[in-house]
Amino acid sequence: MKRDSAVDGVVVEPLRVIEDERGAVLHMLREDSPQFTRFGEIYFSEVRPGAIKAWKRHLRMTQRISVPIGRVKFVIYDNRPASPSNGAIMEIVMGSPDAYSLLIIPPLLWYGFQGLSDSAALVANCADLAHDAQEVERQPDLDNTISYNW
Amino acid sequence: MKRDSAVDGVVVEPLRVIEDERGAVLHMLREDSPQFTRFGEIYFSEVRPGAIKAWKRHLRMTQRISVPIGRVKFVIYDNRPASPSNGAIMEIVMGSPDAYSLLIIPPLLWYGFQGLSDSAALVANCADLAHDAQEVERQPDLDNTISYNW
Repeated sequence: MKRDSAVDGVVVEPLRVIEDERGAVLHMLREDSPQFTRFGEIYFSEVRPGAIKAWKRHLRMTQRISVPIGRVKFVIYDNRPASPSNGAIMEIVMGSPDAYSLLIIPPLLWYGFQGLSDSAALVANCADLAHDAQEVERQPDLDNTISYNW
Repeated sequence: MKRDSAVDGVVVEPLRVIEDERGAVLHMLREDSPQFTRFGEIYFSEVRPGAIKAWKRHLRMTQRISVPIGRVKFVIYDNRPASPSNGAIMEIVMGSPDAYSLLIIPPLLWYGFQGLSDSAALVANCADLAHDAQEVERQPDLDNTISYNW
């Protein structure tokens, strides 16, 4: 089930959507999943059409992300010195129902995301640690450093 | 923070919404929250406008629910023989941003929900057990038994 990805350690895995005329049920993460390690926090981030939330990286936290509403583009940049994919930039578009996946971003990778749908999209993150401002770094102008155009 | 509720053991607690012009951040549950016990599964249930998903109850699982998109009415019916609120029916309307809350439904309570918004709403459930068909009971016609009109 694990797809190849351009950035070492990043996992993208299709998630199940169970259709129902009243509204679908969307899986995300179970305690017995191979992708589960420990529970830190579940929270949501709305992304308005065209809006960009970038760039940040976590020093210790692993992100486990899905997009249950709307469509979002994620961009991941690897500048870990010892990484086999050092310098790589990975793009992935996710959303329900046709591109509903679990995206796992290990610590130390820079990432950001942009809303691509007509109305607000929703990013869910079931991270392995609870939010701690001490382990987050933000760099809004990383676009210039890596020449990335949203 | 714990509000009174009509059904014994049910908790409704306001959750934080951090506004941002690019899209809000919505808290749900952290490992250090008093409401957290253990992680079983996180999944989502879409609810189309007017659609009703009812009734079910869990024999062992506790539901920890929020509504990060749209508006949903939950109805909880208590027929636990030894409950101080035996016979009670509780209604609660939840949604982001003005009524964004955590709803905790202990096992053995019948519940259902209905979409109240113009477009599909999203129910998130961070339950203390992973889905197990053996511990779920469904009774679509409970409305007649308890005379509840959606």
